[in-house]
Amino acid sequence: MTAAPSRDTRRVNGARLVADLAALARIGGTPEGGVSRPAYGDEDIAARARVRDLMRSARLTVRVDTAGNTIAARPGTEPGLPPIMIGSHTDSVPNGGRFDGALGAIAAIEVARVLVEQGVELRHPLEVVDFQNEEGGLIGSKAMAGRLPASDLALTAVSGRTIGDGIRLLGGDPDRVDDAKRLPGSIAAYLELHIEQGRVLERAGANIGVVEGIVGIRYWEVTFAGVATHAGTTPMADRHDALLAAARFVEAVNATVLATPGRSVGTVGRLAVFPGAPNVIPGRVVLTLELRDLEVAKIEALYARVEAEARRIAASNGTTVTLVPTLANEPAPTDQRVRDAVSGAATALGLTPHGMPSGAGHDAQNMTVLGPSGMLFVPSVNGISHSPLEMTVDADVVNGANVLLGAVLRMDAAL
Amino acid sequence: MTAAPSRDTRRVNGARLVADLAALARIGGTPEGGVSRPAYGDEDIAARARVRDLMRSARLTVRVDTAGNTIAARPGTEPGLPPIMIGSHTDSVPNGGRFDGALGAIAAIEVARVLVEQGVELRHPLEVVDFQNEEGGLIGSKAMAGRLPASDLALTAVSGRTIGDGIRLLGGDPDRVDDAKRLPGSIAAYLELHIEQGRVLERAGANIGVVEGIVGIRYWEVTFAGVATHAGTTPMADRHDALLAAARFVEAVNATVLATPGRSVGTVGRLAVFPGAPNVIPGRVVLTLELRDLEVAKIEALYARVEAEARRIAASNGTTVTLVPTLANEPAPTDQRVRDAVSGAATALGLTPHGMPSGAGHDAQNMTVLGPSGMLFVPSVNGISHSPLEMTVDADVVNGANVLLGAVLRMDAAL
Repeated sequence: MTAAPSRDTRRVNGARLVADLAALARIGGTPEGGVSRPAYGDEDIAARARVRDLMRSARLTVRVDTAGNTIAARPGTEPGLPPIMIGSHTDSVPNGGRFDGALGAIAAIEVARVLVEQGVELRHPLEVVDFQNEEGGLIGSKAMAGRLPASDLALTAVSGRTIGDGIRLLGGDPDRVDDAKRLPGSIAAYLELHIEQGRVLERAGANIGVVEGIVGIRYWEVTFAGVATHAGTTPMADRHDALLAAARFVEAVNATVLATPGRSVGTVGRLAVFPGAPNVIPGRVVLTLELRDLEVAKIEALYARVEAEARRIAASNGTTVTLVPTLANEPAPTDQRVRDAVSGAATALGLTPHGMPSGAGHDAQNMTVLGPSGMLFVPSVNGISHSPLEMTVDADVVNGANVLLGAVLRMDAAL
Repeated sequence: MTAAPSRDTRRVNGARLVADLAALARIGGTPEGGVSRPAYGDEDIAARARVRDLMRSARLTVRVDTAGNTIAARPGTEPGLPPIMIGSHTDSVPNGGRFDGALGAIAAIEVARVLVEQGVELRHPLEVVDFQNEEGGLIGSKAMAGRLPASDLALTAVSGRTIGDGIRLLGGDPDRVDDAKRLPGSIAAYLELHIEQGRVLERAGANIGVVEGIVGIRYWEVTFAGVATHAGTTPMADRHDALLAAARFVEAVNATVLATPGRSVGTVGRLAVFPGAPNVIPGRVVLTLELRDLEVAKIEALYARVEAEARRIAASNGTTVTLVPTLANEPAPTDQRVRDAVSGAATALGLTPHGMPSGAGHDAQNMTVLGPSGMLFVPSVNGISHSPLEMTVDADVVNGANVLLGAVLRMDAAL
């Protein structure tokens, strides 16, 4: 990709962007300083109405697709080209942060508005998207990618409303969700600005994360079974303690992942002990194992070692272990051309791009099946997210939007 | 003590005893064949009502003391003598066994019923007791022995109800718990039949355990606190995983106790993880630590080593740990005269008495401060207890009740 020095001088209106973000944060704002906008709740609906107002004030054409995603469009100059899409989401976890999703959605509107204001025409149509229900399973982007099973419409979201009812409340049509589906090749590119939600950028001293891919996740339910006997009458040497085995497993997961080069992570986040009385040796422990990496092969190799450890541990104290795969999210590598656009735009602005995986799931992973997709991250103070303490400083908010603008201009020229 | 051949020909009604036990097991019965009657829960309350019905049908005078213990009485012939007490408890651990406690309570009623039916008068009054909340810390017998601190009334039991609220539900009066207190010397003897809950009798080929003493127990609530962050965005090296620390602690308790000569045991039986989601690194783990030995000094030495391990472990991954003592049961030697009555009755019945400690805590340990106390054990198949697999064969159930009957007659003559 060639440099585009004239275009790289474009900047968003930083003060307006920061003010728009702060105004959105008042919808569903919590006393702790966070936001509660679970999908399909009243605050989510109100926030999406405000997003449409902002889109209209940016002189974009606004619609809601049948899956309930809000989409604003601006025509391109070259007939027949597919759109460049930018955006994110505005729903949140309960008592979450003000930046997760909201930053990418509001910054995308700001980018489109600046282009309109400055009369910068693009070859491609530009679409700004506010996906619905990202936090509850990437529902809006799944529908757009044709990955949402009809049966999911009956699932109840955190707000207490079903996905189907929610889609109707957002202005979609749950009976025609398939009409929101797009085909592979139907977009020129998708690019999403998001907060990092970790400390990689902070530690690296970098201010723009160039996402190399969104990690795949595998989940297992692991059960250790021993013998529940009386804690007072069973000598230590005679025990078949399921919790002791599970404890060794937790340590083994940590040690195995740590000993493996790379950036894999492995987590035991839930663990339940049965019967769970102070004076009974645990007879059964059920826990979750989660492994994440950009490469499925690495997850599988890690799992093979962890499983071997589990069997060795169970044998060590006469317990048994079963490991049952539950959910799986495939890794989604980003497109080299999108990454180059982000890196180039960041460098041209004097910022410091830093290649990294996304450890969290994002709508971008569904968009990878429709066309070249990517993400850029800006730092989260102390890596805190999904919390009222979530913070991204104004300078990084504005940097992220400027890189998004620059990358759109580069992609429009190159793709 | 002289032999009492005429009285040693007395026998309980074995078929009735087995049937009464089976009927009680249907209250709170679990699909696995065990019982769930945690103290103060609906099943516990229902079981205690059934116990009172049985007591009344045995023509005993029934009352509930202010501490919520159910007590049935039969007068003696000799004025001024203190009562002989027999009994046990009918609460259980969650999904526990059908014999733990229930055997001793129902057999005591059967012994009293046989004496009434056969017109056998005792010199001493006879009291049959169903202590409340044995599994949650010997609460009923503690109250009777004047060992229950008023502050314990606010503690929450496994059923979710506080001890104070539970006492009221059982028919006691938490504001007047002290009225249930008895004075040292106020009982002629206390004798409790119980299942062994271990394999000592089975391994020794004996069928009656003569308990020499009950181990002391100390409980602690241990909390590891870390930082709950996103499992996908927090690299392994940046984690402060409270569950990883807790896992190392579970291993350390096991290793420390195993490395200490003697018969001490140490158990982590309950462990709860917060927030407990598969994709969130655990920020807090709360677990129970329990240490048992016949000597308090050995428990204290063990605890010092375990506490040092806990602090080392917390420091190892940037978590914090707090250890709060909760309940304590003192070791309790049994009375030689009671042991002689049990051994004599067993031998007279052609059974095989075997001296042994009790690794489990029992209400009898609180009764030792009120007068000569003791216990007799019958075998547990494979030593399994606090489990639906808990089993004592009918022959041993009946043997235990017959020895209890014989020992009561011997103590009534000798004390």
